[in-house]
Amino acid sequence: MKESEIIRVFMSEIKDKILGDDAGYIKFNEDWILITTDMLVWRTDIPDFMKPEDAGRKVVTMNVSDIAAMGGEPKAFFFSLGVPKDIDENLLRRIAKGIREGSRRYKIRVISGDTNDVSEIVIDGGALGIGKRLLLRSNAKPGDVVCVTGELGRPLLALILWSKGEDIPREVLEKARDPQARVEEGKILSEVANATIDISDGLSKELWEISRASSVKIVIEEDALPIHPTVKELSHNPTEIALSSGEEFELIFTISPENIPDIPFDFTVIGKVEKGRGVYIKGKGEMPILGWEHFVGFGNAKR
Amino acid sequence: MKESEIIRVFMSEIKDKILGDDAGYIKFNEDWILITTDMLVWRTDIPDFMKPEDAGRKVVTMNVSDIAAMGGEPKAFFFSLGVPKDIDENLLRRIAKGIREGSRRYKIRVISGDTNDVSEIVIDGGALGIGKRLLLRSNAKPGDVVCVTGELGRPLLALILWSKGEDIPREVLEKARDPQARVEEGKILSEVANATIDISDGLSKELWEISRASSVKIVIEEDALPIHPTVKELSHNPTEIALSSGEEFELIFTISPENIPDIPFDFTVIGKVEKGRGVYIKGKGEMPILGWEHFVGFGNAKR
Repeated sequence: MKESEIIRVFMSEIKDKILGDDAGYIKFNEDWILITTDMLVWRTDIPDFMKPEDAGRKVVTMNVSDIAAMGGEPKAFFFSLGVPKDIDENLLRRIAKGIREGSRRYKIRVISGDTNDVSEIVIDGGALGIGKRLLLRSNAKPGDVVCVTGELGRPLLALILWSKGEDIPREVLEKARDPQARVEEGKILSEVANATIDISDGLSKELWEISRASSVKIVIEEDALPIHPTVKELSHNPTEIALSSGEEFELIFTISPENIPDIPFDFTVIGKVEKGRGVYIKGKGEMPILGWEHFVGFGNAKR
Repeated sequence: MKESEIIRVFMSEIKDKILGDDAGYIKFNEDWILITTDMLVWRTDIPDFMKPEDAGRKVVTMNVSDIAAMGGEPKAFFFSLGVPKDIDENLLRRIAKGIREGSRRYKIRVISGDTNDVSEIVIDGGALGIGKRLLLRSNAKPGDVVCVTGELGRPLLALILWSKGEDIPREVLEKARDPQARVEEGKILSEVANATIDISDGLSKELWEISRASSVKIVIEEDALPIHPTVKELSHNPTEIALSSGEEFELIFTISPENIPDIPFDFTVIGKVEKGRGVYIKGKGEMPILGWEHFVGFGNAKR
C-alpha cells in the first residue's frame, strides 16, 4: 500500500478528524496545546552526505517546524528511539548530540525519551507547543496574498547532485544538512496571517494542501518564486526544483494585504488567493503536484 | 548494547534530566502538561494470543497509564505508525480499530498521526495529559505505607502458559490481552498520595525505582501481596510471578497513613517506607529485581 492508502484505511477506522494540519491541537483554558510527531527512518530519510548529528538535529527541526507552522511557540521535544541491539555506540552518541544541539537551538527541553529494539534505526520525534491563535491550512481567504520565507530549491538540488555522484556546493549542502525551523516567523504570523503551512513535501504539494483545505484557488507568479541563486545556476529546470524541493522548512502563508506592513522579517509574495478551486501558475495553467521522487531514486513512502 | 546502556549513552549526550518518571512534564500557568511516548514493536511486544485490536488498545493503555501514574488527566492520544509497504489492509484496519476503542475507553481524542515505511511494524503512541499536582517517583517519604491497586500475576502467567503451549484460563487471558489504565485512581491519588508508579515492568523493578528515586528503604510483606487466585492455583511460585509480572498497569503508591481514609477505591497495603536504602521482603532480605525474561523465552530489550 502507498502511504496515502495506509492513512486512508487507518483514518476510516479511527474516525477522529486528524492528520489535517501540521500539528494536532486541543484547547486548554485560553490557549491551544499543540502536539506533533514525525518519524525519521534512517534507511530512507538520511542520505550519506548527512552526518549522524545532522539526523539528530533534523528530527528536532522537522517537529519544531510543524509547531511553527501552526503559529505555536515550541516548548519541549520528546522521542522514542528504535535501534538494533548491535548499534554502534559512537553513532548513537552522535545522534543524541544532534538532538541536544537541535533542542538548544530552539531553546526547548527534552522531556521524555524511550528506547526500543527495532531491526532498523527509527527516531520518532515529537514536539509540544503552545499557541494563542492557530494558523490552519483551512483559513486562506480570497483576497489574501500568498507568501513564502527564504529561498527555495537547495535540499532537492543536493539530492540530485548526490544521486549523480557530483560535488555539492557548500551553500547547498549547508541547507540540505541543517535546515532550520522558522519559529520566530511563525509566532509573528500567528497574529497577522490567515493560513500557514511549512514546506516539508515541496511548494507545489503544500499549495495544493492549502487550496483543498480552504476551498480556494491559488494563482502563483512563476517569476516571483524565490529560487536560490545556486539552484538557478546549476539546474536546467529551476522552477520545477523550487516547486518540488522538500524539507525546506520554509513557511508558506496567506495574509490579507493590509497586514503586510506588520511583518518585520524578509519574505516573498509569490501569488494570490482567489475564489475557486485549484492551484495555477499564471499564464501556464494548473500547477502539477511535483514530488522529489521524480528527480532522484531515493525516498520513502511518505513523499 | 542493552537498553540500559543505550539509554545511558543517549542521556549522557542529551544532558537534559529526563526518563526519570513515567511521563515528561512542563509547567504551564498553574498546571502541568504531561507528555509520554511508548513504542510498541510488533515482533517483540505482541504474543500471538493477542489480536490486532488488542495491540491497538494496548498502545493507548500503556501511554494513558503513564499519565495516570503521574496523577494527570489524559486528554489526547497521538501516534506514529511504521509499517512495511506490503502490510495486510485488514491487519492495519484492526490495529486502528483497537486504537479507536482505546481512545474511547479513556474518553480522549486522537489528535495527530503519521505513517512511515519501516521494515517491521512499530506503533509509537503518545499521550498528553494535564495535572494539578504531580506524583513523582522521588516523593516517597519514610512513614508512608506502600499500596497497590488490583491483583497481580496474570499477564506473566499468560506468557508462561503460552510459551509452554498450555491453555490459558479465560480470566488470565482477559487481563493479558486487555489490561486497563487506572485513570480515575490516578486522579484521586494526585490529591493524597506521595509517590506513584505504574507496573509496566513488574512490581519488584518498580519498587526499586521508587526506592532509588526517593532515597528510601521499602519493606514489603510477602503475605500481603494481592496475588490473583488463578495465579496462586496454577503456579508453583506465585510470589515470584507477582513480583515479576509486567504490563499489569496497576498503580503502586506510597501515602501517609493519615490520608488512607480519603481513598474511595479498592487497594492493598503491601508494605511501608522507612529511612534507608533498598527494597526488602520482611524476614527474607533484599528483594531481587525480577524480570519476566526469567520465565519465558519472549521479550525485548526493554525489560
